[in-house]
Amino acid sequence: MKIETCYSPLTYPLFHNAEAIVVVIDVLRATSAMVTAIANGATSMIPVATVEEAKALQVSGCLAAAERNGEKLDGFDFGNSPISYLDQQIVNKTIAISTTNGTQAIAVASEAKQIVIGAFLNANAVIQYLKDQKRDVVFLCAGWKNKFNLEDTLFAGHVANELLKTDGFETECDSTIAAGVLYEHAAQDLFGFLDKSSHRNRLSHLNLEADIRFCLQLNLYDTVPVSNGDGVLVSHTSLAKV
Amino acid sequence: MKIETCYSPLTYPLFHNAEAIVVVIDVLRATSAMVTAIANGATSMIPVATVEEAKALQVSGCLAAAERNGEKLDGFDFGNSPISYLDQQIVNKTIAISTTNGTQAIAVASEAKQIVIGAFLNANAVIQYLKDQKRDVVFLCAGWKNKFNLEDTLFAGHVANELLKTDGFETECDSTIAAGVLYEHAAQDLFGFLDKSSHRNRLSHLNLEADIRFCLQLNLYDTVPVSNGDGVLVSHTSLAKV
Repeated sequence: MKIETCYSPLTYPLFHNAEAIVVVIDVLRATSAMVTAIANGATSMIPVATVEEAKALQVSGCLAAAERNGEKLDGFDFGNSPISYLDQQIVNKTIAISTTNGTQAIAVASEAKQIVIGAFLNANAVIQYLKDQKRDVVFLCAGWKNKFNLEDTLFAGHVANELLKTDGFETECDSTIAAGVLYEHAAQDLFGFLDKSSHRNRLSHLNLEADIRFCLQLNLYDTVPVSNGDGVLVSHTSLAKV
Repeated sequence: MKIETCYSPLTYPLFHNAEAIVVVIDVLRATSAMVTAIANGATSMIPVATVEEAKALQVSGCLAAAERNGEKLDGFDFGNSPISYLDQQIVNKTIAISTTNGTQAIAVASEAKQIVIGAFLNANAVIQYLKDQKRDVVFLCAGWKNKFNLEDTLFAGHVANELLKTDGFETECDSTIAAGVLYEHAAQDLFGFLDKSSHRNRLSHLNLEADIRFCLQLNLYDTVPVSNGDGVLVSHTSLAKV
């Protein structure tokens, strides 16, 4: 099984593989929020590209989350802070969500065999799920406004490194090799390493240190949100093998 | 002065900065070939995106180089093997050149303040040139068919690391930080590190080990090919400060 890593949603068409599972990654913070919500009892999430779609779903009875440039938009129940999903009101609810980067990445991969939501919070669960599925894997890093970012790449590198220790997985993809090297470099202190990244500038004014530390926790949850074929994310335990 | 690194010509519009010098990098092998040609006496090179343009310039009296997928095309004087430019016939000649990745990257950056041609062969000369110019820098990695590649990224990381030791240069760009980390990891054995990359697969059938070892030599030449305003590459020593 081939592993490839796409650093920008803008280049995803170069990586499209109809047989692959696409792991969408937006560590800070959309996919961390999705994992947290599903792990804490939300029935499903509906990722949508536009704020208008999220609003329409809210009107029809869903909870709704909308974030742009790091901030929760007025009139919505949530933004993309994963900590905000540690709330009993999400239990057994469907949540529509639209974010700056993460849900855009999900949208560009809509033709994939299956979309899987990855974050450090569910890293081992994603690794085990991919080993079980025995399919080609494309890591799709949401990045920041279509540019490369470090945290999504580090997660891709971590999962790729683990898969490459498993019989049957291989890569000839330079971006996967680079991601693996970067993860090895940063693994001992993810927060410290990212402290050097552009996040300090693009997110520091939002007072997000608590969120960042939350998102960088490894393996807090065992759930893997996966697309159910209708573009809706549900826990993998509620789905049969693809 | 800001430093940014673009891993794919497809994403270059996100990095365009009218005041920046764009360093185009196609280590294996187009920019290594250009540096070798200018350093060994070619007066100028005319990078063109299409084979037809290269052929037309050949008909009008230039030498002409054309490469696609690693191979020299029939009817042209050169491909993109840098070693082939160690030939007295290039002295005082203008060479039109079209390659799979490198000249495409030059084409997408045509609106830049200036284009500079970078390769390990002229690394220190590029570093010194950029320090002297005191402008924002965008590293544009040609990559492989618009995908990230390791060797171009390593070169960007090397030059970025050196500039960042200099007062006035700074970066908030994750791809620049990542490139610098990768270069530090690989610097002691560039060939060995790249041996793990996709090059072994995409280029090994072409028997390019001699070319690869040539291209990975640091600082063999002092020349910096730069665009002269008409899209023609000449030695920086023949140009005034931009």
